[in-house]
Amino acid sequence: MTINRRDLEFILYELLQCEELCETGRFVDYDRNAFDAVLDTAYTLAADRFAPLAATMDANEPEFRDGKVVLPEGVREALEDYIGAGFLGAGFDLADGGMQLPGIISFAVSSIFAAANISLSGYAGLTRAATNLLITHGSDSQKQTFLEPMLSGRYFGTMCLSEPHAGSSLSDIRTKATKTADGDYLIEGSKMWISAGDHELSENIIHFVIARIDGAPSGTRGISLFIVPKYRVGPDSSVGESNNIALAGLNHKMGSRGTVNCLLNFGESGDCRGYLVGEENHGLACMFHMMNEMRIGVGLAAVSLGYAGYIYSLDYARNRPQGRHPQDKDPNSPQVMIIEHADIRRLLMWQKVYAEGGLALALYCARLLDDQAVASDEDERRRLGLLLDILTPIVKSWPSEFCLEANKHAIQVLGGYGYTREYPVERLYRDNRLNAIHEGTHGIHGLDLLGRKVRMLEGTAFKLLIEEIRIDIRKAAATPDLQGHAADLTDAIQKLVETTLALTGCGNLNLSLSNATPYLDAMGNIVIAWMWLKQAQVANRKLREKPQEDTGSDFNFYTGKISACHFFFTYKLPVVLSELTILARLDDSLLKMTEEAYLGT
Amino acid sequence: MTINRRDLEFILYELLQCEELCETGRFVDYDRNAFDAVLDTAYTLAADRFAPLAATMDANEPEFRDGKVVLPEGVREALEDYIGAGFLGAGFDLADGGMQLPGIISFAVSSIFAAANISLSGYAGLTRAATNLLITHGSDSQKQTFLEPMLSGRYFGTMCLSEPHAGSSLSDIRTKATKTADGDYLIEGSKMWISAGDHELSENIIHFVIARIDGAPSGTRGISLFIVPKYRVGPDSSVGESNNIALAGLNHKMGSRGTVNCLLNFGESGDCRGYLVGEENHGLACMFHMMNEMRIGVGLAAVSLGYAGYIYSLDYARNRPQGRHPQDKDPNSPQVMIIEHADIRRLLMWQKVYAEGGLALALYCARLLDDQAVASDEDERRRLGLLLDILTPIVKSWPSEFCLEANKHAIQVLGGYGYTREYPVERLYRDNRLNAIHEGTHGIHGLDLLGRKVRMLEGTAFKLLIEEIRIDIRKAAATPDLQGHAADLTDAIQKLVETTLALTGCGNLNLSLSNATPYLDAMGNIVIAWMWLKQAQVANRKLREKPQEDTGSDFNFYTGKISACHFFFTYKLPVVLSELTILARLDDSLLKMTEEAYLGT
Repeated sequence: MTINRRDLEFILYELLQCEELCETGRFVDYDRNAFDAVLDTAYTLAADRFAPLAATMDANEPEFRDGKVVLPEGVREALEDYIGAGFLGAGFDLADGGMQLPGIISFAVSSIFAAANISLSGYAGLTRAATNLLITHGSDSQKQTFLEPMLSGRYFGTMCLSEPHAGSSLSDIRTKATKTADGDYLIEGSKMWISAGDHELSENIIHFVIARIDGAPSGTRGISLFIVPKYRVGPDSSVGESNNIALAGLNHKMGSRGTVNCLLNFGESGDCRGYLVGEENHGLACMFHMMNEMRIGVGLAAVSLGYAGYIYSLDYARNRPQGRHPQDKDPNSPQVMIIEHADIRRLLMWQKVYAEGGLALALYCARLLDDQAVASDEDERRRLGLLLDILTPIVKSWPSEFCLEANKHAIQVLGGYGYTREYPVERLYRDNRLNAIHEGTHGIHGLDLLGRKVRMLEGTAFKLLIEEIRIDIRKAAATPDLQGHAADLTDAIQKLVETTLALTGCGNLNLSLSNATPYLDAMGNIVIAWMWLKQAQVANRKLREKPQEDTGSDFNFYTGKISACHFFFTYKLPVVLSELTILARLDDSLLKMTEEAYLGT
Repeated sequence: MTINRRDLEFILYELLQCEELCETGRFVDYDRNAFDAVLDTAYTLAADRFAPLAATMDANEPEFRDGKVVLPEGVREALEDYIGAGFLGAGFDLADGGMQLPGIISFAVSSIFAAANISLSGYAGLTRAATNLLITHGSDSQKQTFLEPMLSGRYFGTMCLSEPHAGSSLSDIRTKATKTADGDYLIEGSKMWISAGDHELSENIIHFVIARIDGAPSGTRGISLFIVPKYRVGPDSSVGESNNIALAGLNHKMGSRGTVNCLLNFGESGDCRGYLVGEENHGLACMFHMMNEMRIGVGLAAVSLGYAGYIYSLDYARNRPQGRHPQDKDPNSPQVMIIEHADIRRLLMWQKVYAEGGLALALYCARLLDDQAVASDEDERRRLGLLLDILTPIVKSWPSEFCLEANKHAIQVLGGYGYTREYPVERLYRDNRLNAIHEGTHGIHGLDLLGRKVRMLEGTAFKLLIEEIRIDIRKAAATPDLQGHAADLTDAIQKLVETTLALTGCGNLNLSLSNATPYLDAMGNIVIAWMWLKQAQVANRKLREKPQEDTGSDFNFYTGKISACHFFFTYKLPVVLSELTILARLDDSLLKMTEEAYLGT
């Protein structure tokens, strides 16, 4: 149960041509062979060490026992192997102790581990995100103390943003930071939904906590970022006494159960020391600096879960006999494998277009990050940054919605079996339901896209994205087999532009934003249509380059890509146009609906 | 957490005018006061006895301990209270020991209990279904032995259809029945997915088992139905020795965990006696005879779960402060309740249209059952039967799909909290995922609708349904405020007819049926649009009848109904037209897709 390697290589090398990155100074030590070797190791470790723990970690949630959070046996060892293979620091600079892999390869690796065991991957992902913050915004002395132990996995990391009363509305956080005479801060307050917030998997846990310094301005402009270790740390990174962070409760989730999630109380029973990261009151800016990367990560996690369900249910469908074709009325004829049934093929095809389309988009965005990192030209870097800015809410949200739908279909393929915990697909569905909630809810990303991103710099990012799509439309229009799809996507883009203008130009912010979420979904589907047109274009070219008599696995693979593109353009794109037409009407019924009218009370 | 009583009474009395039934001989002893008293009792019992056990039964699955299936404390007592109040036999004839309530009231009662605790309701529902089979098809002596103990809840019942290798394809069952010298049968075989298949909640369990008699024809024409008790029963209904039915394994489900579900082996370790119900080889006909009713029940269960999530998340949204309006940039202004946010209102509105629309449809179908039962005219009974036949796949499937979506939205309203088991909405989502799988999968109902129901008797049932819808369209067209919606539904019906003709007339059964599931969904949405137009029509009339100055709860309730109708017609109906247009194109890509093309292997 994993990511189809043939597809991963298609997306990396044929679609996104990531080998080009090896021509830049930053990645000059790499070539395709080296990337393939990394993928080999990831596939092996994921299958041997991560996958076998997935059901165990789901069935045996973290427990609080004798003052400690206990996880099942084998979790720590699996993470040690992962860290030992260098994956924790895959994307970080060699100078910092990382592997300096391109982001696109690091993300590809992440998808392999996430598909195998998302709960276990969570610990690594959070530590990586925290390390990223440290490298980008930490002081030299902070790096001196924390970087090596974090990159080597002796310390794990977390992000502490939400509070019990403040989830989406971070401007309302109450956790306090009080400056001490020696320049440190005392942290006091409660943080909710802290993944990997407490455990015994590492010697220490380094929390990155947002809090308000006494006297700071209200709202988001008064938020500062702090390093707050579970145990105090000496300058030589030795672990000392408790820093007074109390586990106040474990959250019991529907899915993603193996990643411990908790409420932490800071400084309740004694001094809890925090160390300011960056400048006072600029904490959210530090966080936002790495938002694009983190949100691609969430989207990719959603994709990976959708992909894992796809692979599992496809295999099941190819091996489960049941029923006969509609025209076969002979009950003594042998049953067919269920993949012979059109409805099962449909359930699999939706999973394919969602999972592979989402993977293409996530890795496309990862490639943009790499291009941005190696761009020598400031304008180009800015252009890439704007593309990333506008794609970020989509790459986070579209998979969270539609790869969850894929997981729903995977259950359906297995029928009753799929509904039981003896099979993995129901777990994937439960796990995936989280992704539309954390790292900004679906609705928040709708507001981000329609309220900020499409409007920013007078629509510059939006226009840049449309330009990028039009480049691929022109290529497809020059390909006889794809001219119809090129025309369809042209129409869709036109409709998207019209709807965007109607929504942003209506002069009523509330009215405009009242339809932000369906706008996010619709634009996401158009972006995915683009990803499918790109894939079909490459597949079409590859097929034309092949000898006609070759009908082997490459032939199957490329025709499958073209069929999936056709399916998405046939069954999804016209519906999206209809949805955009609805949005352009600026219906105000939700604004008018009173709370009393829902029930009549 | 329950069904909005104001809405239930609106649907029962104002929309479906169920008091009319009291004018018929069968229900002459009832009036609205009596119905209301029944509802009172149901609401009280559901809240006091069913709801408190819902989380407990989810967290403490049935366990096999010391040879017995153990359920949490209180389950049996809650069921005893339910039975004591007469609800087990609510719909059965007085002569049989029931309450002879109209089906529409029995179903309304079921929705109240299902919303409170679906797992607990399951035991009653299965016993009722088995009792129904006994009454309809059992011999006098079988009724003599089993009816009283089943109706009094001393014996519970089950339906044993599926086998491990035969779920959707019942024609492939292998369980054997061998006639003995005394006219009984020996049953041998395994039955899978048996809900309420083993437990200690009742003195005995009466399984209704389909099996093949030695030498019976292949396929569905060789299936017979048997009563197979867990413990043998004397003619005086006394419980005797074991009938050799072995619990071979408990299934561990994603949701609906409190309803024990298992694999049973019949006759593995000794004679297992079965008693033929009806004629040999006519077992499926007996089953199908009550399919309409059972499937309305499944659809109603899906509705009830969607409804419960709606009510819970609506209450949460009215009481959870978070964030501010888009135009409010002052971080010191008080936070608003989240129901103030348009996106939350949207999530609630979708739940409202799905849950209330589904409830209207399920009770509409229940009313058809009643009308059929009391119709004096054979033609009218036939007409009602055809309407029920064509609506059955829809009333079962539409809520299973869209009220699950409602539960997804309920989680989203609660955010992180909704994802935890400390709140009920994630449980409802898990519970509801079952309904698209059991009692015929979603795909099977698509085939039933497009392959049989719309074609039968040269489209007679389909035409009758369209006629019914057109009656309500004409009423709406005569109502100034609803003329636009009337025109929209007219267009939708036209498109549905065209698409249906395209699909049924294409001369290629495989091609036609390859799009059966999306056809089912699309037609379901049109039927629900009709239900909303009906509701808006009544609400509009009631509003016009009210004094203008009255802006109390009735005003809120009726305007809410009209707003919900508007919402469904604005945001859903145009999309459905687009989906129908796609289907009419008879795309054959799923038939052409090879299994190797999915992965390239």
